[in-house]
Amino acid sequence: MNSLHQAVVGCSKTDLYTPALCLDLDLFDANVQIMVETCQKHGVDWRPHAKCHKSPIIGRWLVDAGAIGLTCATIREAELMAEAEIRDLLIANLIAGPAKIQRLVELASKADPIICLDHQDQADAISQAMATAGVYVRVLIELEIGMNRVGVDDLELVERLAEKVHSLPGLELAGVMAYEGHLLTIEDLQEKEQTIRQALAKAMTARDRLESRGLPCSIVSCGGTGSFPITVKQNGITEIQAGGAIFMDEFYRHSCQIDQLENSLTIMATVVSMPTPDRVVVDTGRKALNIEIYRPRVREPKGLLVESLSAEHGVLRLTEDATPPKIGQPVEIIPGYADLTNVLHPGFLGFRGGKFEREIPIVR
Amino acid sequence: MNSLHQAVVGCSKTDLYTPALCLDLDLFDANVQIMVETCQKHGVDWRPHAKCHKSPIIGRWLVDAGAIGLTCATIREAELMAEAEIRDLLIANLIAGPAKIQRLVELASKADPIICLDHQDQADAISQAMATAGVYVRVLIELEIGMNRVGVDDLELVERLAEKVHSLPGLELAGVMAYEGHLLTIEDLQEKEQTIRQALAKAMTARDRLESRGLPCSIVSCGGTGSFPITVKQNGITEIQAGGAIFMDEFYRHSCQIDQLENSLTIMATVVSMPTPDRVVVDTGRKALNIEIYRPRVREPKGLLVESLSAEHGVLRLTEDATPPKIGQPVEIIPGYADLTNVLHPGFLGFRGGKFEREIPIVR
Repeated sequence: MNSLHQAVVGCSKTDLYTPALCLDLDLFDANVQIMVETCQKHGVDWRPHAKCHKSPIIGRWLVDAGAIGLTCATIREAELMAEAEIRDLLIANLIAGPAKIQRLVELASKADPIICLDHQDQADAISQAMATAGVYVRVLIELEIGMNRVGVDDLELVERLAEKVHSLPGLELAGVMAYEGHLLTIEDLQEKEQTIRQALAKAMTARDRLESRGLPCSIVSCGGTGSFPITVKQNGITEIQAGGAIFMDEFYRHSCQIDQLENSLTIMATVVSMPTPDRVVVDTGRKALNIEIYRPRVREPKGLLVESLSAEHGVLRLTEDATPPKIGQPVEIIPGYADLTNVLHPGFLGFRGGKFEREIPIVR
Repeated sequence: MNSLHQAVVGCSKTDLYTPALCLDLDLFDANVQIMVETCQKHGVDWRPHAKCHKSPIIGRWLVDAGAIGLTCATIREAELMAEAEIRDLLIANLIAGPAKIQRLVELASKADPIICLDHQDQADAISQAMATAGVYVRVLIELEIGMNRVGVDDLELVERLAEKVHSLPGLELAGVMAYEGHLLTIEDLQEKEQTIRQALAKAMTARDRLESRGLPCSIVSCGGTGSFPITVKQNGITEIQAGGAIFMDEFYRHSCQIDQLENSLTIMATVVSMPTPDRVVVDTGRKALNIEIYRPRVREPKGLLVESLSAEHGVLRLTEDATPPKIGQPVEIIPGYADLTNVLHPGFLGFRGGKFEREIPIVR
């Protein structure tokens, strides 16, 4: 990756072959500290999501900084984090099909994963494979709290599925999971707080109903970066998953109105063309920068707005008071949505005090 | 990659760890054959774009099948293709900034690249670096023919830039490039043909004006997959760049009405949840499948429509007459837009006669 971006220790962001995904490690550390302290203050565990970085190195840093373990979106991510000797791994997704279940069995012999279920067919297949291999896996029941994606909606069904999981070999019922992802962008902050609290109340009710039947429910897991200041205060939550907080981005800042964190992640681009007095074209398009969820923002130089991206070109507009940049000049851009931007890159180029320190591969 | 997807020689698509990007090599070969024959019939060279595959292996196959060379979007892609001993490489993009120009100088000593320019500042900087290193590079003037992205609009300026390039050391004027990318989705096919012919006529005028001033113009390069049946017939064009044709996708078929080619590329997914009778959730979201340009389509099983994608989940809807799939069942999906889908994957899993044959890495 170093040779790809021409990054040598001590070089500056403006020396790079672009596009290049740059991580300001000073700001990153500050964000991690805020998350750890916020969780400690509210007596909630932090289990940051690894899907936004897909890096065993960063996963290790977060656990060393105080995270209880990690959340993963796929078995593959959990495998990578297990290789970094992190054992307490929640795969916050549903697992099905022989190929995946085989990998889960192997993972359960190396780490201590937690999986989610929302249907007894998943439970039966995974239980059988686990029991045959002589291993076990912890299980959360995934609740539907309004996202219309996955999860069990009806609390009677939650109880029945939990009882089933509790009865099956190779599965160990550990609690419930809920995700308030559909409520992140409510504009009125009072309404946002109230609506999230209402939605998450269902998780507390589910926990109460399981416990009243003598079923274990030591984990109530929820919370993304776009809602963590609200979710972390919710009574009964045992852990929050907010992971993108380490990077921050325009979506979290503006759509979700999160203002406690700094943008540690930027993309370096280069001006390659200035075909008209107000149009600047950079070498960075949709293959290096996601524009679906929120518009990226130019940090430097001032006065450039991201107008559109095609695969390999980014078209920027000059504001009226801006100084036109020169062809060949570097441009630093804050991602609109880091999660979908990072997967486009082979890794992060880590800078400290403005100097390149090390590369941090993003693993597929 | 094999271990990532559990692909072993002879296995079927339904055995894979998903999501997995699968290439049907029989259909791929048929598409290549159609492109080679179409170009031969019209006396036009085929210089297929490598940005859609980013694979030196596929690049090599295309040149062996009759392509004159390749088109690349970045210096990085051209470096990779040069490593596969392909010399005639058009970088159909603008190059600026010291880091890129340094790489271009190195490339010019290993291969015979062609670059594009739309401003004298690029010409000056590249000429100086080339001349200092004692190498040269062929140059096309990039024309603006309506895309409002890059390129020189005014034909007087085209002449002046061409004269400048012709006069500078380290640069060898070779012709012009134009891209009709803004005209691919015109619905009425007669209007589409007429509009594209009008736009490309500017390239012919530019060539005539350069040649009338005694300037060389042996290359007139244009043409994408969404317009190739029209562009290939255009008098005066010397080469077409259509590259995505080897894969085909829903965007080309439906938005661009290209019907001569087969979908060689599919994504294998797995049903992981069926939370309601009409909602099916697969393990394949925006990190494996692009949905920005055109909606992906489920090939198998029948009766499933892609409703929405989040990062790691795909929500499918059952049509009225469909048989509900089972949790764990494989689902085969045709990409909406292959170019932006492929970069999300480490490589293609190549199948022939329905059996896994080999992996084909996609290089970053």
